[in-house]
Amino acid sequence: MIFREATRQDLPAVLALLADEDSVVDPARVVIGEAHERAFAAIEADPRNEMLALTDGAGGAGGAGEVVLGCLQLTYIPGLGQNGQERALVEAVRIRADRRGAGLGAELMRLAAERARERGCGLIQLTSNKRRTAAHRFYERLGFARSHEGFKLHLEP
Amino acid sequence: MIFREATRQDLPAVLALLADEDSVVDPARVVIGEAHERAFAAIEADPRNEMLALTDGAGGAGGAGEVVLGCLQLTYIPGLGQNGQERALVEAVRIRADRRGAGLGAELMRLAAERARERGCGLIQLTSNKRRTAAHRFYERLGFARSHEGFKLHLEP
Repeated sequence: MIFREATRQDLPAVLALLADEDSVVDPARVVIGEAHERAFAAIEADPRNEMLALTDGAGGAGGAGEVVLGCLQLTYIPGLGQNGQERALVEAVRIRADRRGAGLGAELMRLAAERARERGCGLIQLTSNKRRTAAHRFYERLGFARSHEGFKLHLEP
Repeated sequence: MIFREATRQDLPAVLALLADEDSVVDPARVVIGEAHERAFAAIEADPRNEMLALTDGAGGAGGAGEVVLGCLQLTYIPGLGQNGQERALVEAVRIRADRRGAGLGAELMRLAAERARERGCGLIQLTSNKRRTAAHRFYERLGFARSHEGFKLHLEP
């Protein structure tokens, strides 16, 4: 398997993962909107944001036969606490529906935490919807402390 | 009152707020370490990070007599969801110990949400330690939904 930054070429596969709830979405059928293009370009250009892909490595990184098995986004946040170390925020964690239950999610999170640690982050954090109780057990098994309440407020344009 | 980006000149006052748990810390007694300098410079230089100060406005913005009453950090996170809109993450929310209970926290959060909305963010989010039950009621009164569990994992260097 390969863990690497997603490129523009991976965008259909990443959007397919994000659209996928219970069954695999065919990347070839994903409609890439202008908003997606802009957002992906913003992530790629930002030194404190990365869209990361876990792939089966078939044909090497970026090879024609390579299948994206999972993804997540890391944001590295500078801050005055924690002795000036960045903290890493995880968003958009997904594993392909037909590859779940085989430890890929744990591997993806382990690689993300290791990447954040190597960069010098003192903390990695995420929020998970209260309804997703299986995900909560998953994160706790990985050593995350469920220490905080997560609050969200939608903003109207 | 004035709501504005904190400058290097405000760093002692901001660090005093962050150090303050139950009583006011005198900014003149704050020791500014090299890590603080680096972290503050990183926030200032990053177009997706802002340390914001709410001040009493005495003598105008940055004036000699101006007192910093509260602070928070906003991070604007690009993402593929939400129609490509950024989301705003709030960290390091503080109100001066001797000015609490007068609605300043609500005003600070209202201004932060308005700033994020004007920038085009679709969502503003934060986590709060599960022990801080009064803070949870505060965020719910402001319209935030306590919809998520917040997970943290400390990373060893």
